[in-house]
Amino acid sequence: MKTWQGRIAGGSDPLFEAFNSSVAQDQRLAPYDVRVSGAHARALAAADLISREEADTLVRALNEIGEEIATGAFTWRDDLEDVHTHVESRLREKVGDLADRLHTGRSRNDQVAADVRLLVKDLTRQVLAEILSLQRAFLDLANRYPDDLMPGYTHLQQAQPVVIAHVLLAYVSMLGRDWERFRDVLGRTDRSPLGAGALSGAGFPLDRHVLARETGFSVPIENSVDAVSDRDFLVEFIQAAALCMTHLSRFSEDLIIWSSTEFGFVRLPDAFASGSSMMPQKKNPDVPELIRGKTALVIGDAAAALTLVKGIPLSYNKDLQEDKTPLYHAADSLLASLGILAAMVPHLEFDTARTRSAISSYTLATDLADHLVRAGVPFREAHAIVGGLVQESLSRGVDLTDLNPSLLAEASPALASMPELTPEASVRRKGTAGSTHPDEVAAQVRAALLHVDERDIWLGGRT
Amino acid sequence: MKTWQGRIAGGSDPLFEAFNSSVAQDQRLAPYDVRVSGAHARALAAADLISREEADTLVRALNEIGEEIATGAFTWRDDLEDVHTHVESRLREKVGDLADRLHTGRSRNDQVAADVRLLVKDLTRQVLAEILSLQRAFLDLANRYPDDLMPGYTHLQQAQPVVIAHVLLAYVSMLGRDWERFRDVLGRTDRSPLGAGALSGAGFPLDRHVLARETGFSVPIENSVDAVSDRDFLVEFIQAAALCMTHLSRFSEDLIIWSSTEFGFVRLPDAFASGSSMMPQKKNPDVPELIRGKTALVIGDAAAALTLVKGIPLSYNKDLQEDKTPLYHAADSLLASLGILAAMVPHLEFDTARTRSAISSYTLATDLADHLVRAGVPFREAHAIVGGLVQESLSRGVDLTDLNPSLLAEASPALASMPELTPEASVRRKGTAGSTHPDEVAAQVRAALLHVDERDIWLGGRT
Amino acid sequence: MKTWQGRIAGGSDPLFEAFNSSVAQDQRLAPYDVRVSGAHARALAAADLISREEADTLVRALNEIGEEIATGAFTWRDDLEDVHTHVESRLREKVGDLADRLHTGRSRNDQVAADVRLLVKDLTRQVLAEILSLQRAFLDLANRYPDDLMPGYTHLQQAQPVVIAHVLLAYVSMLGRDWERFRDVLGRTDRSPLGAGALSGAGFPLDRHVLARETGFSVPIENSVDAVSDRDFLVEFIQAAALCMTHLSRFSEDLIIWSSTEFGFVRLPDAFASGSSMMPQKKNPDVPELIRGKTALVIGDAAAALTLVKGIPLSYNKDLQEDKTPLYHAADSLLASLGILAAMVPHLEFDTARTRSAISSYTLATDLADHLVRAGVPFREAHAIVGGLVQESLSRGVDLTDLNPSLLAEASPALASMPELTPEASVRRKGTAGSTHPDEVAAQVRAALLHVDERDIWLGGRT
Amino acid sequence: MKTWQGRIAGGSDPLFEAFNSSVAQDQRLAPYDVRVSGAHARALAAADLISREEADTLVRALNEIGEEIATGAFTWRDDLEDVHTHVESRLREKVGDLADRLHTGRSRNDQVAADVRLLVKDLTRQVLAEILSLQRAFLDLANRYPDDLMPGYTHLQQAQPVVIAHVLLAYVSMLGRDWERFRDVLGRTDRSPLGAGALSGAGFPLDRHVLARETGFSVPIENSVDAVSDRDFLVEFIQAAALCMTHLSRFSEDLIIWSSTEFGFVRLPDAFASGSSMMPQKKNPDVPELIRGKTALVIGDAAAALTLVKGIPLSYNKDLQEDKTPLYHAADSLLASLGILAAMVPHLEFDTARTRSAISSYTLATDLADHLVRAGVPFREAHAIVGGLVQESLSRGVDLTDLNPSLLAEASPALASMPELTPEASVRRKGTAGSTHPDEVAAQVRAALLHVDERDIWLGGRT
Repeated sequence: MKTWQGRIAGGSDPLFEAFNSSVAQDQRLAPYDVRVSGAHARALAAADLISREEADTLVRALNEIGEEIATGAFTWRDDLEDVHTHVESRLREKVGDLADRLHTGRSRNDQVAADVRLLVKDLTRQVLAEILSLQRAFLDLANRYPDDLMPGYTHLQQAQPVVIAHVLLAYVSMLGRDWERFRDVLGRTDRSPLGAGALSGAGFPLDRHVLARETGFSVPIENSVDAVSDRDFLVEFIQAAALCMTHLSRFSEDLIIWSSTEFGFVRLPDAFASGSSMMPQKKNPDVPELIRGKTALVIGDAAAALTLVKGIPLSYNKDLQEDKTPLYHAADSLLASLGILAAMVPHLEFDTARTRSAISSYTLATDLADHLVRAGVPFREAHAIVGGLVQESLSRGVDLTDLNPSLLAEASPALASMPELTPEASVRRKGTAGSTHPDEVAAQVRAALLHVDERDIWLGGRT
Repeated sequence: MKTWQGRIAGGSDPLFEAFNSSVAQDQRLAPYDVRVSGAHARALAAADLISREEADTLVRALNEIGEEIATGAFTWRDDLEDVHTHVESRLREKVGDLADRLHTGRSRNDQVAADVRLLVKDLTRQVLAEILSLQRAFLDLANRYPDDLMPGYTHLQQAQPVVIAHVLLAYVSMLGRDWERFRDVLGRTDRSPLGAGALSGAGFPLDRHVLARETGFSVPIENSVDAVSDRDFLVEFIQAAALCMTHLSRFSEDLIIWSSTEFGFVRLPDAFASGSSMMPQKKNPDVPELIRGKTALVIGDAAAALTLVKGIPLSYNKDLQEDKTPLYHAADSLLASLGILAAMVPHLEFDTARTRSAISSYTLATDLADHLVRAGVPFREAHAIVGGLVQESLSRGVDLTDLNPSLLAEASPALASMPELTPEASVRRKGTAGSTHPDEVAAQVRAALLHVDERDIWLGGRT
Repeated sequence: MKTWQGRIAGGSDPLFEAFNSSVAQDQRLAPYDVRVSGAHARALAAADLISREEADTLVRALNEIGEEIATGAFTWRDDLEDVHTHVESRLREKVGDLADRLHTGRSRNDQVAADVRLLVKDLTRQVLAEILSLQRAFLDLANRYPDDLMPGYTHLQQAQPVVIAHVLLAYVSMLGRDWERFRDVLGRTDRSPLGAGALSGAGFPLDRHVLARETGFSVPIENSVDAVSDRDFLVEFIQAAALCMTHLSRFSEDLIIWSSTEFGFVRLPDAFASGSSMMPQKKNPDVPELIRGKTALVIGDAAAALTLVKGIPLSYNKDLQEDKTPLYHAADSLLASLGILAAMVPHLEFDTARTRSAISSYTLATDLADHLVRAGVPFREAHAIVGGLVQESLSRGVDLTDLNPSLLAEASPALASMPELTPEASVRRKGTAGSTHPDEVAAQVRAALLHVDERDIWLGGRT
Repeated sequence: MKTWQGRIAGGSDPLFEAFNSSVAQDQRLAPYDVRVSGAHARALAAADLISREEADTLVRALNEIGEEIATGAFTWRDDLEDVHTHVESRLREKVGDLADRLHTGRSRNDQVAADVRLLVKDLTRQVLAEILSLQRAFLDLANRYPDDLMPGYTHLQQAQPVVIAHVLLAYVSMLGRDWERFRDVLGRTDRSPLGAGALSGAGFPLDRHVLARETGFSVPIENSVDAVSDRDFLVEFIQAAALCMTHLSRFSEDLIIWSSTEFGFVRLPDAFASGSSMMPQKKNPDVPELIRGKTALVIGDAAAALTLVKGIPLSYNKDLQEDKTPLYHAADSLLASLGILAAMVPHLEFDTARTRSAISSYTLATDLADHLVRAGVPFREAHAIVGGLVQESLSRGVDLTDLNPSLLAEASPALASMPELTPEASVRRKGTAGSTHPDEVAAQVRAALLHVDERDIWLGGRT
């Protein structure tokens, strides 16, 4: 059974059948294909192309097929080329010739566009939920280290002391932007191509608003040519996934560095690590390494998706059949990475003694310069004076905080009286909103939790 | 003059100075750097770190520098490593030691993040305006071909007759989504990193809302670590540019094919084409070919930007200095491509006699099947009957519309009475919203024009 | 059973086990893993770490396991994390504790590097053979159209008449370079990492030349750190695959255009095409469209592979586990595409009446200019004269060859006597090696066939 | 002056001229364009299309133009669209109408293909030389640390002790493969498209072997259609550059980690580092960070180049004009990165006391397991025993080497006598070729130096 024999004479070459088949990829679309067909049956009845009873029969049979798919009872066959053919073939087994009336006024072009959109909508909602879970995990972890200190880094060189919770909040912020992007993707995916036919619309008065509503879309897509050839939503989903993965990859990079023997800042849970087949002492940060690796692949998915849609003329072209490979890979990689991090992050343990003692006295150099500024020294001059003291202490092999008072006073009279040069004092001297001051950090955590709650409610309200 | 001599002893290797310098890339940031510095001077005065008069002096001098930059009077020197150093150095020439007080409580990390955001905001607004211009050009062209017909294609095979304006509207829809995406980018770019310092905030009570407002940002970014290391807005801009370019590339592909001798659907204006140095008869579609080529490069920019931010740990890392190469290239390619299409599209001329006569009778096969459906034949059966007739007419070498009535009646009694099998009748039989029915197309054009007007007003209202 | 329990306390989180598992990907490595282990057993015996009899027992059991894998009798279990664990576990079932001695002096790091190299070697040989098959198919097709003419295109505008075989030969040349690149990949893949241990070598005197030879590698890799962390061969394979795919994609683009109604140059075999579920008249060029789509994905694979290896420090990092996804996808896409083209190309039929009649008289403009040059007119002047004649004939709506003799003579006295202005004469006037002159084309076909034969022999001689 | 006015009526739109112009990109091709034109003049004379004297005049004038280009005396004008037009226009100023005869039998299509190939040949030779320089720098550095020890890492976790020189040699090996790849690129670039004309060959008997030889190519490209449309050599160059950059990026990643405060393994030279504008104590690893960033961009170049050539039909298409942007960027990034590393590596200083003391006792766990194997314990059992001891010592907070002898003996009788458990003894126990044993490392350094010398000689012998 083929839906298209029409003009094609003779049988297909077996090599062609294998090359052309999308069954392996399409199985994931099956639940949506059934839903789309049900809506189409209703629309046909509304347009008096079939009777209401026939529509009921079709919908009932389609629902049964949906059940079979959901429970794994559905049989996938190599000789049926795609999901549409499978559903229609099974439908014929159930309702006989009535099945032959279902394809009236539609094409696989608008059908598959609707199927994929429904899938992307579901995937996007899953991503939105997982992002919120991971944000909660980070915020819970942040709450465990509300004023513990660690070195803050720029260029992987120690820069200034920071509160551990403050660093974790940076990842919460990144994920917050990812959430916004996926919310935007959801809005642009939630539009119905149904009723566009092959490209020019249907030759029957099918109500596209009804088709949209019955299938769960908010609105129809304006232009029928665009409706069958647009894959922006899919590209945009993969782009958002790639950007989100770079955040997970950056955190992974931090974890890998922090859990090295030399840093020793964080202990990964044994339940999320493996060892070596040769070296009995090994405990490897597999999860962050795999996430870093998967990120590379999702970046490749984004390049692939763009290259795929570039350069094809209007309207639908078979190239688009390949869009599901990068989509599935990007979605599955992202969901798995968000999921395992949400499970692992609560088990991370910072060695706060180690992070505190790792803070070099040199990270307080800015505090010293700021102190000079408060005493009236222009900042550039203050920077130079402290730079000289840093050089001096390095060459003497002493901490910046251990320099001789007379040497300090010589460098600048303003250093006759010194500020409290400790990491604890440093973070509490920060005076700007969003800074690493512990009180400010605590406020940020509270605000972020509220924000996550609100988004959870919004998401729960969306079907 | 270096802003960072501090701990670094001795001079720099000349190879290093050249490798490290960002002057070539930074020049484009200069107007924004001046604006950011002016806002910082105001914030310092508000925090009593300098006097109001000193702030006025600084702002005045910075405005002068801004003038110099705008008029090209500003001197760029190889020995000053970046835009910040240039502005500060010139400021010192103007206001002396007062310049040394300006860098209080800030870092090049938050400064450059603000500069780039302001640039991306401006670029995004330019893109938004250019998209609307190109949409208008398409709509004007559509208005010139309101019911002229051409073959509609899927798989580059003739599918069904369509109205030319309807095809052009598909591009208006694509551009409409691009506009939405850039509007979203604008929203996420319009956030201020100022006051984040190197990564942990500033050691002085600088008001970040004031800093944001004075520089033209809507809100401050919550977390200071995130503020200096986030480049999402830049990646997202390039991603949106790449997706928009694929639409321009698809239209280019159509133009190239339509203007081939064999298709002959459209005449490109001579003023936008070149010839061959060897073959005197040539007229080449350079513009669409170059756009197709530039699209490939912007896809590369998107991959580059993602790869750049992947895998760097928190927070700022020098890798990010390279972000401007793909940003500039993507922005310039997109703006140039939108601009030249907006200029060229009004000069396109469809050969409507050719597009009409190119429509094969076979494109009416769906109409014939639909006719059978209206007569009560199930669609699958109708499809098979018409498929047989197509084969028959192909083997006889006649048009589908020229088949012998008796042969038709034999194929199905319902074909004893035939529908009007012309392209004109075909498009008018379309019954769905967004279809190629000329009345529907006219309504779509009107709605699209209104939509573009509204967006123009919205954009005009944004600073 | 885990190979690494060592230091890791307690069990693994099920989420981790799923995330960490490489079983799905590793199954394809199983035959190579068995071979590598057999060689290792021999090397252990040679170093007196096990007895010769023990080695024989191990090799025999491993061969049995190899059989089981080849016949599908081998059982894959979710609770064993990778291929190495599977083979070792099965080996223990067969030979008991002796299996525990096999992992002496090696690590999964050098083991998996060897497995993947052996796979890539096999894949490369398959690609080399498939390329030769496709070249033969093109050459056979070329032989069917030795002096049939078609328009030659630049910018998809008709340029000059060409022999069909000549155009097909261009693809033979592209594939010839692909063959060279894969041959180079083969050379660089054919190096053994065995004996490198985890990264520093083995603590036993294992003979790396023997390990290499027994496994089928030509030479050992010099440096053990490099040996376990190098994936250049894999990246290079994917890069060569991506470049080869662009050639197949370009040919596909040609096929899609040539088989459009408007061009009508080539008939795709029905056995390699499908139709439409809605439009009974459709016959779509699915194969070239899918190849074009797959090319986009393999370009993504290449970007992914590079991004994967970028930025990881020495030496082995778990990120590399992800390398198999792009490798398999690129290899399978390329092999399937080469295979189906080799099967389809012999069935292509050029409509030589159509290709001949499609040649516009304007494609002879260069011949006219060349004629003037032969008469002593400088080429630039000749180009301008003929350009004027082209404009003249276009405005009169006549063929370039139908211009009035007096008008010609007026344009240049040299045009009083005209050359034979036919496509047939044009191609025979070509005077350079590699040109479209039919005799030259015939010589190129013969030479290419010889070249393919030689390479077939070379490939047959390589194990 | 345009080379193509021919059929194009009227002037060009200024927007088009700017969009279409390739002058900015072409300037770099000018020296090659002159050389190609000189060879063409010779070939015209050999075919009696101009006289020998005229050829001499042309070549002399072209050489002068080449001088002007080399010295910067050549004037680039906005109104001449490309390099070919510039050279021809200047030639006309010098030799008058004779210039109009030069373009006989050629096209800008074969001309620009030759220009770009000659440029890529030169770039490739530069890369080959720079790679050898950097290899020497690594080998010299290796010679300074012939038996100093550091921890060897897998997964950024300490694995086993290694000799510093051994780690550096891994980079020498990677660069050695890069060298091979660029040598292969050189071979495939060194083929001449000249004489291919627009696509079908030239209408005159130009000797393509002479054209090749005079321009410095080894052989002509077989097929003329392929000759003008092939950009494989350019893609392959960028691919090789991207892969080479990943090696530089991996080394950069190592440098960044090694120069962190926490690792403290290596001191970057002050002359190759910068500081912070805010934090006086900072010294940042700018060079490796910038290389890491540039690598991301070159990966983007590779994706761009592939996407560019994908999907264009035969033969030359204007899209290809965009190929120079990724080519130049990739070549310049690679050359600059190789160059600065070759300059900086000699100034790296390992803190060998720090690298030695950083080696954890746990890195000797494999040695302990190997000791058990030598005593007859199967490796898997040995791995488990030592794993238990590792856990024991971790829970007691003592070094693995400080475990109580009785506890050891209890774990296994074979541990009653212990091997020398020091990093020095560990590396000397390695028994395989290419391992970290200091004697083996010394031999590897010597062999590598010889290899570099040989390649230097080979390269010197190539023109």
